[in-house]
Amino acid sequence: MSRGDGRVRAVIERITPAVDGGRFAVKRIVGDEVAVEADCYADGHDAIACRLLWRREGEAAWQETPMRPLGNDRWRASFVAQSVGGYRYTVSAWVDHFLSWRHDFSRRFEPDDLRVAALLGAGLIEGAAGRADAEDAQRLKAWAARLRAGTGAQALKELGLDEELAAVAGRYPDRRYACTFPVEYPLVVDRERARFSSWYEMFPRSAANEPGRHGTLRDCEARLPGIANMGFDVLYFPPIHPIGRVNRKGANNALAAQAGDVGSPWAIGAAEGGHKTLHPQLGTLEDFRRLMAGARAHGIEIALDIAFQCAPDHPYVAAHPQWFRRRPDGTVQYAENPPKKYQDIYPFEFETDDWRALWQELAGVIRFWAGEGVRIFRVDNPHTKPFAFWEWAIAELKREYPEAIFLAEAFTRPTVMHRLAKLGFTQSYTYFAWRNTKHELIEYFTELSQGPGREYFRPNLWPNTPDILSEYLQFGGRPAFIVRAVLAATLAASYGIYGPAFELLEAGARDPGSEEYLDSEKYQIRQWQLDAPHSLSELMARLNRARRDNPALQSDASLRFFPVDNDSLLCYAKSAAARENLVVTVVNLDPHHVQSGWVELDLAALGIEAHTPYQMHDLLSGARYLWNGPRNFVQLDPQRAPAQLFALRRKVRSERNFDYFL
Amino acid sequence: MSRGDGRVRAVIERITPAVDGGRFAVKRIVGDEVAVEADCYADGHDAIACRLLWRREGEAAWQETPMRPLGNDRWRASFVAQSVGGYRYTVSAWVDHFLSWRHDFSRRFEPDDLRVAALLGAGLIEGAAGRADAEDAQRLKAWAARLRAGTGAQALKELGLDEELAAVAGRYPDRRYACTFPVEYPLVVDRERARFSSWYEMFPRSAANEPGRHGTLRDCEARLPGIANMGFDVLYFPPIHPIGRVNRKGANNALAAQAGDVGSPWAIGAAEGGHKTLHPQLGTLEDFRRLMAGARAHGIEIALDIAFQCAPDHPYVAAHPQWFRRRPDGTVQYAENPPKKYQDIYPFEFETDDWRALWQELAGVIRFWAGEGVRIFRVDNPHTKPFAFWEWAIAELKREYPEAIFLAEAFTRPTVMHRLAKLGFTQSYTYFAWRNTKHELIEYFTELSQGPGREYFRPNLWPNTPDILSEYLQFGGRPAFIVRAVLAATLAASYGIYGPAFELLEAGARDPGSEEYLDSEKYQIRQWQLDAPHSLSELMARLNRARRDNPALQSDASLRFFPVDNDSLLCYAKSAAARENLVVTVVNLDPHHVQSGWVELDLAALGIEAHTPYQMHDLLSGARYLWNGPRNFVQLDPQRAPAQLFALRRKVRSERNFDYFL
Repeated sequence: MSRGDGRVRAVIERITPAVDGGRFAVKRIVGDEVAVEADCYADGHDAIACRLLWRREGEAAWQETPMRPLGNDRWRASFVAQSVGGYRYTVSAWVDHFLSWRHDFSRRFEPDDLRVAALLGAGLIEGAAGRADAEDAQRLKAWAARLRAGTGAQALKELGLDEELAAVAGRYPDRRYACTFPVEYPLVVDRERARFSSWYEMFPRSAANEPGRHGTLRDCEARLPGIANMGFDVLYFPPIHPIGRVNRKGANNALAAQAGDVGSPWAIGAAEGGHKTLHPQLGTLEDFRRLMAGARAHGIEIALDIAFQCAPDHPYVAAHPQWFRRRPDGTVQYAENPPKKYQDIYPFEFETDDWRALWQELAGVIRFWAGEGVRIFRVDNPHTKPFAFWEWAIAELKREYPEAIFLAEAFTRPTVMHRLAKLGFTQSYTYFAWRNTKHELIEYFTELSQGPGREYFRPNLWPNTPDILSEYLQFGGRPAFIVRAVLAATLAASYGIYGPAFELLEAGARDPGSEEYLDSEKYQIRQWQLDAPHSLSELMARLNRARRDNPALQSDASLRFFPVDNDSLLCYAKSAAARENLVVTVVNLDPHHVQSGWVELDLAALGIEAHTPYQMHDLLSGARYLWNGPRNFVQLDPQRAPAQLFALRRKVRSERNFDYFL
Repeated sequence: MSRGDGRVRAVIERITPAVDGGRFAVKRIVGDEVAVEADCYADGHDAIACRLLWRREGEAAWQETPMRPLGNDRWRASFVAQSVGGYRYTVSAWVDHFLSWRHDFSRRFEPDDLRVAALLGAGLIEGAAGRADAEDAQRLKAWAARLRAGTGAQALKELGLDEELAAVAGRYPDRRYACTFPVEYPLVVDRERARFSSWYEMFPRSAANEPGRHGTLRDCEARLPGIANMGFDVLYFPPIHPIGRVNRKGANNALAAQAGDVGSPWAIGAAEGGHKTLHPQLGTLEDFRRLMAGARAHGIEIALDIAFQCAPDHPYVAAHPQWFRRRPDGTVQYAENPPKKYQDIYPFEFETDDWRALWQELAGVIRFWAGEGVRIFRVDNPHTKPFAFWEWAIAELKREYPEAIFLAEAFTRPTVMHRLAKLGFTQSYTYFAWRNTKHELIEYFTELSQGPGREYFRPNLWPNTPDILSEYLQFGGRPAFIVRAVLAATLAASYGIYGPAFELLEAGARDPGSEEYLDSEKYQIRQWQLDAPHSLSELMARLNRARRDNPALQSDASLRFFPVDNDSLLCYAKSAAARENLVVTVVNLDPHHVQSGWVELDLAALGIEAHTPYQMHDLLSGARYLWNGPRNFVQLDPQRAPAQLFALRRKVRSERNFDYFL
């Protein structure tokens, strides 16, 4: 008649965190304290007890932590995510007659009442003894016996309310009629780089020192010290596989390639091989392994591009014709978005009857590079392949390599981007490149850091990519590049630049109104003058050092914006370690004019005493300012310094230290 | 490897309305249009199609309605809830290759392209033909054949984009790889009175005309015309069963009853019988049936009180000792909340091993009175019985009597009150009696009408009950009663008063600081002078007439508050029928002083043209005012009229009518 035993009286609701009712996993990193809350209550006035249950994926037994009441039937407990991998958690609650009895007993005064109540309590304690280990059972039985013996009212009351014995009894509750929430909520625990990472993207074929030569992985190896000096910890390459020759595109996306044109690295596959093969001009697998080792020595991880599409001469096309769609004229369907045609690219047909084999083969591509030690994958256009495929493929790979990181390159509608993040992508590209005004930035980053997506969507901000040269960068000059670098590096714990185009302020677009680079590296080899005096490499180094030194910049949940009475000035703060580390960023979004205004910090939210001065240490210029109270004046000249990145240092009470701000 | 077929590419998320992910039912009334929305999308750029699936509970086959896109992957459709009872709904979506093809085809221009695309379309149309009925199949095959024959580009394009034939093909989509959301969301459709009801509570034993005589159901019959004149449509009686004699309470809750004391009707059960028996002094079952018929003739429904607890002499105590908890001294556990004891009341022990029989018996009590024609039940303290019991018992009864209405009398924590509403109670008592200031009222009623509870929690507002004589009423005099009656009748579509105490302005409390009535009818018979000149019966009649005449007052979702520059003045509006019916209420919450201020209506939200005067017709006084623009002055004298209840009438363009406001 009931769904279960009618004596189960406790109910559980609103367990948080949860993504789509437990359909998808919440994300955390190793060492995080995972705080779980739930509404737990029962009918009537009986006391209840609640426990948080959690276990690593695959373990049979739950670990348990008692939850503590927060008021209004809300309960909370937490556990530390101690290792990378999957976890599950849920909540159990029950009417606890021993706790109810103890609460009632404390409010009884009449001797007769106390005597009867003591007998009742003795019964409950004997029940607990029956569930206890031998030693505790002994103590509980003795306690019950003394309650039954019942001496004077006062003595009885003290005996009944004995704290220590209550704690013993509390360890053996009667959970016969406990309610355990039927959903086991999934949690994915990643390593720290999943949340905090600084990416540098470059085309290996442009890495040669001499003009005109095709760069190699060996050339990339030579670049590692410079990239490490800038402070980046992920080095991401566009596809490094053989490039198709059929319908190859020329420079600036010309329909027909000229002799010597190198083609787009995303037109993958040729006679030499496909997704599991290295482009012969880049080097050998041996070179790749050397590069991996060299990067590791510099604290850098190599990230590869997963682009599941084929050039017409990719070996798959002949070997697995059923993986491609045929046009009615018998030719293979190339990518198109009428009237545009991309005849150098064949998409996979995921509706093929042979989809199982296709999925296995594609997962095998990722597994192949994982086998070579690659643990970070930037996935090209994941939103044009089925969601179910990614959910399966990522889970498959993470079962073997739980430390794997997947960055979703999906610039598309919010629902789709969120779905990809929910189903397993570790990080996601964002709309950052097109959010330039104060209002846009506040709205978007408040949503990202405070909205429901905060549990699963980890933004990775890119001021530029080989596909995106924003108008702000095209027309804002050097200040625009600095502004966007500072915003990217401080608004999100993960960010990246496509270099050397970025640090060398490359700003020429192919056509007016286009976001495509002129002479884009997508279609040709470029030569970069890395030691150019205008290079932002020093700024990038300072930004990345600030990020490494300040835990506040290594996660996003604490982001808060503060008012400035000037729409060109943006001010926000992040904090970490119970506000011990505090970083306040002020940016002049106007790359053309000096802007000034009054910043209004929320001192209470930042944990700063109202009437005590505090020091603002600009980590970019090194300057230190003494601020006082919530309102302070700022003025930023885009030509000198369009942004300030303040470590906020509170006054320390002792004045014996020379530097008395912490 | 996938959870299902890997070719299922559409996904569905965020179906609304939904209560706790479909664990509980959304509530509507008969005739409501049930609008369902969902995020539906697929990978890539293919078109998708979505349908809303819905059916009556117990029917095997879904009915289907195509959903239309609202933008950003949100889709919507609705169906009309045509009958009382349970429904289910969910959403199905699929990648629709015919729609994708048609979209692509419209963007093709080259003759070769069009020819190849026409062949592709022909194949899809032939597929649709294979799913179509004979006549449509014929048309589709002919269409496909003409596309294959392929004449000039322009002609081919027109042929391919034929609207009428596309509509035919659209009726036979390929749903092999459709995604149907796995949750079938429950919906409970009630009759109109579930949402819109005006309750009058009275003690039948006080209904006698002569002083000192125990009132009877026959006396109640004589009261029906007066109650109908006041416009109430639900007449609710406290328990009408035999009252226990053991430990009976005396007048004003005296511990020991005097001879002649009638006891509390909630101390149910004595030698004469229990919950299925009428109190002999009230009359016979025959009298009850007459009263039911008489009420029906006056458009009034009788509501009974379901109070699942027993007096010590209730027959259950002897017949089913296992349904009660024993104290260690062998006596039955009476109700207590230490140090308070309620020795005249035995609660049921729901943790009894015999819980199945107990549940059946209690459900049988409700079924017994339903068998007598009762369809409305006010449930006393449901929060002191297990949630699972109510969920089962209400579902059980509604299976047989889907038109049954249950009002939950749970004055307790929000979680508990919401749980009861979610699990099946039709209406709920609220905190209204303790929400008296402008800020409190705006906050609470915004939450009730706009918060997530709006899908399942139907508030029923009571300015007073036999247990609650608020301080506002105790000290505010006649204006306070008027204010609270107007608020109750207009803030919520369901409300009730405990009379005749309310309309006769009964305001004496038993003790200072107490909300208990002095000489409460809970413990003694009272005599009421119904024709007293100070009676508010005429006001109640006007209020209830306004409620019947104005659909705006018959539901809560449209409630909106408007600013008034005086914290004693509250202003709000409700609308219905696409704002054709508009009611604006202005209340002076200060029962002691004249208050005035500027009301600021949101004309755009009310659908009023900015520069056109509109008429405000006070349904309480009958006065009419011409207002203009958003800001208008109001002044309310609590001694004359503490509230105005305006029907807002827009100017009608034709001036040939004498009354040219509608």
